[in-house]
Parts: sequence; structure tokens; C-alpha cells
Amino acid sequence: MRAIILAVGTELLGTDRLDTNSLRLTEVLRAHGVQLLRKAVLPDLEAVVAAELRRAFADADLVLISGGLGPTADDISREAVAAAAGVDLTLDPSLLAGIEKRFARMGLRMPETNRKQAEVLSGATVLSNRRGSAPGQLLEVGGTAVFLFPGVPNELDGMVASALEPWLEERAPAGERIETVTLRVACLPESEVEARILPAYAEFGREDITVLAALGDVRVRATAGGGAEGRHARLDAMRHRLAALLGDAVYAAGGGDVESTSLEAVVGRALAERGQTVAVAESCTGGLISERLTRVAGSSAYVLGGVVAYANAVKSSLVGVEAGVIAAHGAVSESVARALASGACRVVGADWGIGVTGIAGPGGGSAEKPVGTVFLSVACAGEVVSVAQLRLPGDRERVRLGASQFALEMLRRAVFALPPLEPRTWGSAQPSPASA
Amino acid sequence: MRAIILAVGTELLGTDRLDTNSLRLTEVLRAHGVQLLRKAVLPDLEAVVAAELRRAFADADLVLISGGLGPTADDISREAVAAAAGVDLTLDPSLLAGIEKRFARMGLRMPETNRKQAEVLSGATVLSNRRGSAPGQLLEVGGTAVFLFPGVPNELDGMVASALEPWLEERAPAGERIETVTLRVACLPESEVEARILPAYAEFGREDITVLAALGDVRVRATAGGGAEGRHARLDAMRHRLAALLGDAVYAAGGGDVESTSLEAVVGRALAERGQTVAVAESCTGGLISERLTRVAGSSAYVLGGVVAYANAVKSSLVGVEAGVIAAHGAVSESVARALASGACRVVGADWGIGVTGIAGPGGGSAEKPVGTVFLSVACAGEVVSVAQLRLPGDRERVRLGASQFALEMLRRAVFALPPLEPRTWGSAQPSPASA
Repeated sequence: MRAIILAVGTELLGTDRLDTNSLRLTEVLRAHGVQLLRKAVLPDLEAVVAAELRRAFADADLVLISGGLGPTADDISREAVAAAAGVDLTLDPSLLAGIEKRFARMGLRMPETNRKQAEVLSGATVLSNRRGSAPGQLLEVGGTAVFLFPGVPNELDGMVASALEPWLEERAPAGERIETVTLRVACLPESEVEARILPAYAEFGREDITVLAALGDVRVRATAGGGAEGRHARLDAMRHRLAALLGDAVYAAGGGDVESTSLEAVVGRALAERGQTVAVAESCTGGLISERLTRVAGSSAYVLGGVVAYANAVKSSLVGVEAGVIAAHGAVSESVARALASGACRVVGADWGIGVTGIAGPGGGSAEKPVGTVFLSVACAGEVVSVAQLRLPGDRERVRLGASQFALEMLRRAVFALPPLEPRTWGSAQPSPASA
Repeated sequence: MRAIILAVGTELLGTDRLDTNSLRLTEVLRAHGVQLLRKAVLPDLEAVVAAELRRAFADADLVLISGGLGPTADDISREAVAAAAGVDLTLDPSLLAGIEKRFARMGLRMPETNRKQAEVLSGATVLSNRRGSAPGQLLEVGGTAVFLFPGVPNELDGMVASALEPWLEERAPAGERIETVTLRVACLPESEVEARILPAYAEFGREDITVLAALGDVRVRATAGGGAEGRHARLDAMRHRLAALLGDAVYAAGGGDVESTSLEAVVGRALAERGQTVAVAESCTGGLISERLTRVAGSSAYVLGGVVAYANAVKSSLVGVEAGVIAAHGAVSESVARALASGACRVVGADWGIGVTGIAGPGGGSAEKPVGTVFLSVACAGEVVSVAQLRLPGDRERVRLGASQFALEMLRRAVFALPPLEPRTWGSAQPSPASA
């Protein structure tokens, strides 16, 4: 099956908004093995949308339209489909009653313009919208199925689950789907991840394993299709093989949802399970590590607090870093990172302490300690258990984010009693000669 | 002039990547008054891209293609344009020499596949790429100008500045452009911003003033076109009128770049100019306020440090909040926010102190203090100068972000000696009956 996605809305052709509905639709298409031929963003102009639709009817088996179902004169998706398919639009009295009721429930009278939302394409099935007043529609045009969805993401999501997914499942050969498993790896360069999983490429084929790299965070995704039994067996085999090849660098693995499993959530869960606590004393990251740890709901069970020790005087007064150590080694040094980590444990009374000091830039670098130089340390019960020195590439934001990622991965490895990370630069900003 | 933007790349049809190049291109088109007819994302399939191009040549005066200029078999944009325009591709020896040199400079030999990047469409102008090996091209097809840009955003940006903008400027009627001015407002509901600027709508027309609301942050954008003199006069008039209507709620105003002027940068500049310092003692925001303040380059001049006082014991031990105050009023109370703000000044030795305590959720709420309840305070030289109690809507992330925004705005108002903010809820998540 071949699909085309059309997002209708002049506002999506500006610079302030991107069409994100197509991502949700793409995900569902992919899970059902539907090929996406193209996607387009169109203005609120009936003739433009109708022309695009005529071509889409010729090229695709499935056309998904989002947006343009509102009550204003700008909302022209229904009219454009009617024109392109050569069918009529008629007012559906029961739909109208439903929309009027919706307004009445909110103590409002339906504005006259909303009548438009009760107009249905001849031969179309109405798709109910529990989250808004714009009903969706499904129309068969020749061999092509056309879905009209509202543009509000939350309303579209609801209708995708209630209408599109069941429709696709009915059409899929018994039980066939495409499923993925994702393994997440922190602080390993993409090239090393690639090198480690080479044997899996050879065994399972390159197409079904993809590597997605972000700053200090790599996702390895395995995909399998077909009937449930064969699919699950293959997915399990891929997952186990990849996990074995990547080893303890994998911090999370699983289907779908694992995408949203962050490093801070994984570390947090481990701390909570052990009844242990953590405190951060951070300089160049300026609060980012504490902020990431406390993003996780329930983190008050294991985060006691922390210190943003930006000025040297604060490193000494609040974390107890001896002024002599700063004078002897400089504020950006391994000695100060160690003193921050053990001090964090001590002054906050936490089991684990993280200490970070570095030069985030753009100023403050020197030949000996250029921008991107970061020292990190993790302490347990006041004793330093691991240290690292990094030279991070990129701008201030990337240095801070990279340092926070490395710090959390160091803590994860310490909490799980894994061997310490080998410090290295990742996400190198070197220009690549082969570009596209 | 009417334009169409095409992004070529199968990876842009998946769920992991969005085409963002089109935003940069749209911005430039808009500044030159070019209408964007549609934009599309296409797979790396020559026939699909060629078919789209034929239609684009018929509909538009300007076609902008990004991506598909790399050295691999997947990179088919040159071939697709050749097919659609009916022209040849020929190897350009001097281009080839340049690419070989680029590799040589990096100590590498050019792979044979890269020869492809030296192929030029007959009649096309080569657009040099200082940031990568993929040259761009500009070809006239009938009445349509076709630009081929690399897909790497950084390379595309360079070529837009060096080739597209001059090309558009040459074609614009003498001096005509479209320009915008943006005024940024913190912690005022969108509806109140709208109400305040009603007179400006009446004077200048609704089309040229747009309001964009994010969480606790509203942008009012005025747009003017035409020749330089009239445009600047109109823009100045709009800017002054809007500034007068919005009053001291405006924290930044200006052309283009003001978009990236954050509240923390504005507050930071004010502190730096006054030679003053700040410290934050934050509970529910977990480090976010310190993190935002220190995102700004050069913030070490005015941020001395701060405390993430999550556990009650840490509020007392590190910030000096008396245990009795916590016991009497609860950790989430105005008294504790006050003690955190004045304590932040005292323990860090800063001129200004911010104290924040609240319930970010999802747990921890009660009937009296539901999730979203936040108390904030700002102190100067250890004395509390302003307090606020908020009931913020939304999830954990939104509560934390909203609280940080309010705290920074309270600090801005205190530093600039403006009257304190009227506490209120903003960004209400109420469902709207009229949806699209």
C-alpha cells in the first residue's frame, strides 16, 4: 500500500510552525508496512489543495489529510476533496445536533459558522471526534481511501487511534505488522557503536538496523515485519545479539516506549530501588545536572539537593572545596572536581555525589585548558570512585549538555558497579568531506 | 513571485527527522515578499522527484530544492532536475579538482563516488560551498529559476546567504523588502496582550500584527513591506504604539535577532551593567532557574551560584531556612519562599536572591495546595522585596518552566525597579469548543 500525507494550513507554510502531525501518521503507516510516497504542506486555498489531491488520487492507495476542518472560511479541506473527487457536500442534521450539543454543554450557543463542520462528503463515513468539534471523514475515491483529520494534534491523535489504526489492521494480512526495538547507549561515539554492531549487520541485514546519533546519546533500532510469531522471534534475536555486542554501554532497551526512557530516569530508578540518594555540585553545567535529575517525576525520593558552585568563593563556602586546592590547581581541575563530588555527599548528606567543573565557553579558554575542557567526578559516601577529563566539541550549549550526559552516565556506571567509562570526545564537530 | 520548496531525502519521510531547512528558506522568501505556494518532502527516487519538479516548473517562478547532492547512489537531485528540465549533466574538471583538493587538505584521497558531485547541469551556474563538498547549482528552466542546495543545514545556510539572498535582492523592486519587529512579553496571558493591543489593530490593520504565545512568553510581531523609507517609518510607528500599549511588560523589542533575546539574557545584561550579582535557592524547579541564568555566555560575571534545596534538611542546612518555619507553614509556603530568597543572598553573598518552592507534580498535591501551587520570592541584600503565589496549569514540565519564567520576570522587575507583577495563572489548558 502506498500513502501520501497532506497537511493543510497557511500557518504551516510560515516560519513559526512545523507540521508535526505527519510524524504521528508516519509512525502508524510504518507499523503497518505502508510506504510513504511523499508529504506536502499546502496553503488554505481550495484550488491548490484540489490540484494536489487529484494527483494524489492517481499515485496513492491512501491519502491522509490533516487540517482545514475548522469552522472558518479558511477551512477548505472538505470543499477541496469534494471538488477533486467530484462529489457533493451535504449537511448532516445529526452531526449538526451533536456540535450544537457540544457548545451547549459549555454553556455556549453554536456560532452560525460552525454549521460548516456538519457538512459531509457524499458517500463518506463520519469519524467522530471526542476531543473537538471537527468530525473527520473517510471517503473512497476510485481505488484510493481518503481520510480527513482535524489539524489539532491532540484531536488527530485520538482519531488516528479510533479510525486509522483499525482500518489499517483490517487490511493487513492476518496479524502482519512492523515492530521495532530500540537500544539506547550513552557516551559512546557513533563510529564505535557502528563498529561494535558490525556482526549484527552481517547476520540480520543492514536495512533492519538503524543507528541514530544525538549528542552523547545513540539509539540502535532493530525492525522486523511479518506475522506475530516470526516477527517476535526475529526481534528477540536481534535485541539479544545487539545487547551482547554493545554490552554495558546499553542503558535502556525495549519496544516503542523505550524511546522516551532518558538516562536520568534510568539512573533515578536504580537509586530509588536501592534506597540511595544523590547530590550534585556543579560549576560549568550551572544547574543542568540537578535539573535533569529532577525532571523525572518522583525524583524527590532520591535527589536531596545540590549546589551550583559558579564562583570560587561558593565552591569553598557551600561545598567545602579548600581555597588552597583551587589556588594550586585552578578552579577547572581534577582536584576541584574531586572536592566537589565528595563535598556534595558531605554537605548534603547524600550517598552519591557528582562534581563537575569546566569551561563551557565561549570565553575563559586557554591553550592548556581550551573551551570544552571539563573535569568530572563521582563520589560514594564522600569517597571519590571515578574521575574523567573531557575535551568536548561544540558551543556552550553542547559543552554543557555533553558534560551533563557524561556525568549521569558516570553515575549510572558507579551505581550499577560497572567499570568506569573510558573518557573520550564524542559527537566531534569535525567537518566531514562527504556531505549531502 | 511564487515559490515551491522541495526537501529531498527518504530519511525526512521517517519519524526521526523533520525538514527544518524549509524554515530557513521560508524566512528568506518572506523577507523578499515571495509567496510560498507549497512545500513537499520527497524520497530519494529520481522518478518521484522529477514528476514533482515538472509540476513545480509549471506552477512556480522559483523552485528551491534541498538535499540529494551527496556522493552516493541515493543522491538523485541533480539527475531528477536533468530529467525534468531535459538537460544534460556534464563533469566539470575544475569542480572535480576542487573536491579532490578538499579531501587532500584533510589527508584523504577522494573516493571515486565523489566524482558525481562535480557533475553540472547544462547551462547551470555553480554555487560554491565553503562548508562541504557538495556544490549547489542554479538553473533557469523556461521562466522558472531552480536552486539546488545541499541538505546539511549549516551548508544550506551558507549558500542561502551567498547565493539566494543576493539573487532575490537583485530581483526585488528597488529597495523593497518585508521587515518585522518583535516585542516580547513575559507572564501576561495571551488574552490580556490581545486586549491591550486592540487600538493598534484598529490603527494599523490586523494582518500586519501577529501574536504568538508560548508558555509564559508572548511575542507580538509587526510586519511592514515596501520601499525602505515608508517601511521603516511604518515599522517605527507600530513599534512605538505597541510598546506604549504593552508598557513595562515588554522585556525585549527589536528586529529579527530579538527573537533570540531571552528573558534570562535581558536580566543578565541588566545585572552586568549594574555590577550586581544573583543567587537562586530553588526547590520545585530543581536547578532550572540557575541553569537558565547560566545558559547565557558571560553569566559568570553576575551568577555566583545557587542551591537546589529539594529536601527540607537541605533548605535548612545550606540556605538557613529555620526548621521551625518549615514545620509551622509547610515546605511549600510563602514563608519558606521568603526564607529561601533572603537565604540565597546571605549564604552566597549575592546582591539579589530568588527563592522558589512549590508542587510540580504529578504527586504531592493536596486540596489546599494542589499540583501547580508555587510560591516565589525575590530578595535584595537579604531583604525580601517581592513575593508571589501561583497556581500553574499543566504537567510537571510546564509547572517548572512556568515557575522559572515567573521568577526571572520578578527579578527583572525588581532590578529595573518596576512595580511587582500581579500573580495570575497563564497558559490555561481549557479545551476550546471551536477547533480545526
